Amino acid sequence: MGKLSRLGIFGLGTMGRNLALNFADNGVQISVFNREIEVVDELLKTISDTGKVSGFKNVSDFVFSLDKPRIVILLITAGKPVDEAIEQLLPYLEPGDIIVDSGNSYYKDTERRYEYLKSQGLRFVGLGISGGSEGARKGPALMPGGDFSAYKDLEDSLKLVAAKSHYGPCVEYMGNRSVGHFVKMVHNGIEYAIIGAISEVFYVMRNLMRMTHEEIADVFEEWNKKDFDSFLLRTASAVLKQVDEKTGKPYVDVILDLAEQKGTGLWFTQTALEIGVPAMSISASVNSRIISTYKELRRSVAEKRETISSSKVIESFETLRDALFFSSLIAHAEGLWLLTKASQIFNYGTDLEKVLKVWRKGSILESSLIDSILKHNLNFSNCLIEDGDFRAVLEKLLPSTMALSNLCRGAAIPIPVINSSIDFYLSVTSENLPANLVQGIRDWFGYHGFYRVDQPGTVFHFVKPESQSD
Amino acid sequence: MGKLSRLGIFGLGTMGRNLALNFADNGVQISVFNREIEVVDELLKTISDTGKVSGFKNVSDFVFSLDKPRIVILLITAGKPVDEAIEQLLPYLEPGDIIVDSGNSYYKDTERRYEYLKSQGLRFVGLGISGGSEGARKGPALMPGGDFSAYKDLEDSLKLVAAKSHYGPCVEYMGNRSVGHFVKMVHNGIEYAIIGAISEVFYVMRNLMRMTHEEIADVFEEWNKKDFDSFLLRTASAVLKQVDEKTGKPYVDVILDLAEQKGTGLWFTQTALEIGVPAMSISASVNSRIISTYKELRRSVAEKRETISSSKVIESFETLRDALFFSSLIAHAEGLWLLTKASQIFNYGTDLEKVLKVWRKGSILESSLIDSILKHNLNFSNCLIEDGDFRAVLEKLLPSTMALSNLCRGAAIPIPVINSSIDFYLSVTSENLPANLVQGIRDWFGYHGFYRVDQPGTVFHFVKPESQSD
Repeated sequence: MGKLSRLGIFGLGTMGRNLALNFADNGVQISVFNREIEVVDELLKTISDTGKVSGFKNVSDFVFSLDKPRIVILLITAGKPVDEAIEQLLPYLEPGDIIVDSGNSYYKDTERRYEYLKSQGLRFVGLGISGGSEGARKGPALMPGGDFSAYKDLEDSLKLVAAKSHYGPCVEYMGNRSVGHFVKMVHNGIEYAIIGAISEVFYVMRNLMRMTHEEIADVFEEWNKKDFDSFLLRTASAVLKQVDEKTGKPYVDVILDLAEQKGTGLWFTQTALEIGVPAMSISASVNSRIISTYKELRRSVAEKRETISSSKVIESFETLRDALFFSSLIAHAEGLWLLTKASQIFNYGTDLEKVLKVWRKGSILESSLIDSILKHNLNFSNCLIEDGDFRAVLEKLLPSTMALSNLCRGAAIPIPVINSSIDFYLSVTSENLPANLVQGIRDWFGYHGFYRVDQPGTVFHFVKPESQSD
Repeated sequence: MGKLSRLGIFGLGTMGRNLALNFADNGVQISVFNREIEVVDELLKTISDTGKVSGFKNVSDFVFSLDKPRIVILLITAGKPVDEAIEQLLPYLEPGDIIVDSGNSYYKDTERRYEYLKSQGLRFVGLGISGGSEGARKGPALMPGGDFSAYKDLEDSLKLVAAKSHYGPCVEYMGNRSVGHFVKMVHNGIEYAIIGAISEVFYVMRNLMRMTHEEIADVFEEWNKKDFDSFLLRTASAVLKQVDEKTGKPYVDVILDLAEQKGTGLWFTQTALEIGVPAMSISASVNSRIISTYKELRRSVAEKRETISSSKVIESFETLRDALFFSSLIAHAEGLWLLTKASQIFNYGTDLEKVLKVWRKGSILESSLIDSILKHNLNFSNCLIEDGDFRAVLEKLLPSTMALSNLCRGAAIPIPVINSSIDFYLSVTSENLPANLVQGIRDWFGYHGFYRVDQPGTVFHFVKPESQSD
């Protein structure tokens, strides 16, 4: 048989295939297995000269080809298939062996699997991975969490394949148990909001400023060179430059405006509600996508509105740039708030600096915004807004962002993500909110109770005169 | 022992006690039981002359005191206690007997209990109830769902105790299985948004217009007389007129601006995400409350902002009235969207006209807005916005609402619920949204696929030249 493999990849879909090739390119001896076994042969055919990859068509041979402690990286569809794969592997694994789930798993499932495998004497790592299929091939951002000793056994191999930023390989230990997938979910939540904000800025440039797709792409590229160095902005630019061969139109014009959501945006928003973190703009981005899915409804109820079309309306691109910058920073603030709270509640032991450095390259959030966030104090109790310098940055961007909000109201153009990011920031930085009236109302009709400003900790109720009760 | 009771009330907390008294006042012969048995005695002491109420201290006597088919109405804490109570009752009930859960139960639990009790030969009704403790005492809005024949056995008694509107008793069969509690959840979601909108209008009147609490209460009362006839606005007015004995200040000034959420707002928002309904302003109201709970954080990061204080800034109260009207209608539209979709997916068989008539009195949403909504076409596929007359009403209110939004941006005053209601409406009534760019971006980096406007139903992908891939 030959040399034992350093690790095995179970699952050769797009992600598994690309990651396998990445490992092989980096000189790591690997075994691969796929349940549909033709895929194994297909992969082996694409590999030129390397003796680095051994393909297997049954689980036992696959497992026995691995050096101990055995490391199996799962890259299969999230949900039941992962549990099934684990059950397939268990009979052949031994105590101390390592299973790494690198699929898009829901963190609560990872939590469950961690405890289950621990009870079986196995070591489990929940590995969040970003960067899409290209990231997997050339260098993904890797977010491993779970058994620390297992991470240490994996570390060298992961560092070889991970993206490299000026901070080093984009892989760090995220913390305990399920945090790897939690961090991935947070990453995706932030991603939703930034994509939403980019699309809203595009919408303004098209509908209010009547710019062509090419012109918009050029402006995005300018911003990227000067300020953002953002994978998402780069991607938007590339997409805007595409021409549809069939019609000769800008491709974006023939793409249906119906944005599905794969689940992670949903998971993020539900988790934020559950844990009690007000991810206002990320929630808005999810709701915005949901509205887009009702294309027929929108077509049938569309109101024709007078569009104020004049480039004088927006004095300069700086207004738009500032709004995008502001919303992107708020998205990060909301996401990191959720991660911070989760780390406290779930005892994840997460170091935000490591998380951000991992995202710096190879992730969808790759951007120099991350460098600027890293300059702030990350030891906050709840939210990055606690850092005065971060607030100063936001305060500078706020006037433009609010000006854009007003222009869009004047033109009846919806920009829910950007608007929510403003309301989030203004609410968090308001010492007094009208929640006192909310509490008064709730107690008046429902006896829910309220606190007094002068007697913390004690619950009070109105004493309602009979004649004043409704 | 005497006459058998028409029905029994299990649970004598505030709601159970008040509902029991309501039944007794209406001449219904009832039995009551509470697990802490002293409460039974306490209740009996408060009842003057009526022989209508028999108290019991053990479950078997309680059950055997009921005429057949036996009807037991549970009014206990949601969650495990309900399951425990059911188990306590089962040994003494017979096939055909009826259990009514009138607590604040989560609809998925009601679904489960319905199937369970059905398998035991029992008939289950999940009864949503609104109006607080006073409603329970004097006339609640009742939302029963589940076993139809059981509802028919209950109907006469429920009609006696329910609130009465000009449509009749505020109780109707809501539909199958768990819909009674689903409707209650929708009711509470709408309630969150309206309370939020009222508090935002109050916030503007205080911070921008420098009005006193009395002045604001008077304006709310004016609006109520002319347009709203709203329980919530009436409540807000009453609360604003309260004076704190201890300090002599308006009471609202000594209430801490920290608004907790009991759970139903969370349930609504999570369910909307799950089912795929974009409840933008209701989500914003939940997030707004969450932000309020971080009082210490807000105090520590508060930014002092220049407030433009001038009553000239807002030309007339009409602007504020229109904004509140607009947001309230949008809240109903979002809530009814969720109910419509749920009824389709879960085969609830819900009639929206009945739901609205039930809410007209005795519920927290009691308001003449309901009369106006009832005038529109409720046979929509998704959203009330499909009705042209409803859109016409919103279009008339929109300019004021957007003007208020701009004023608040100018003064850096956050009004997330009102702002979200605008973005919701503008997005839904936009034939084209920038989700085409979202889809383009998602496919470029993640191969998620998009639809073309000219070839419905087929998923396409970009073919990326090697040099353009990132």
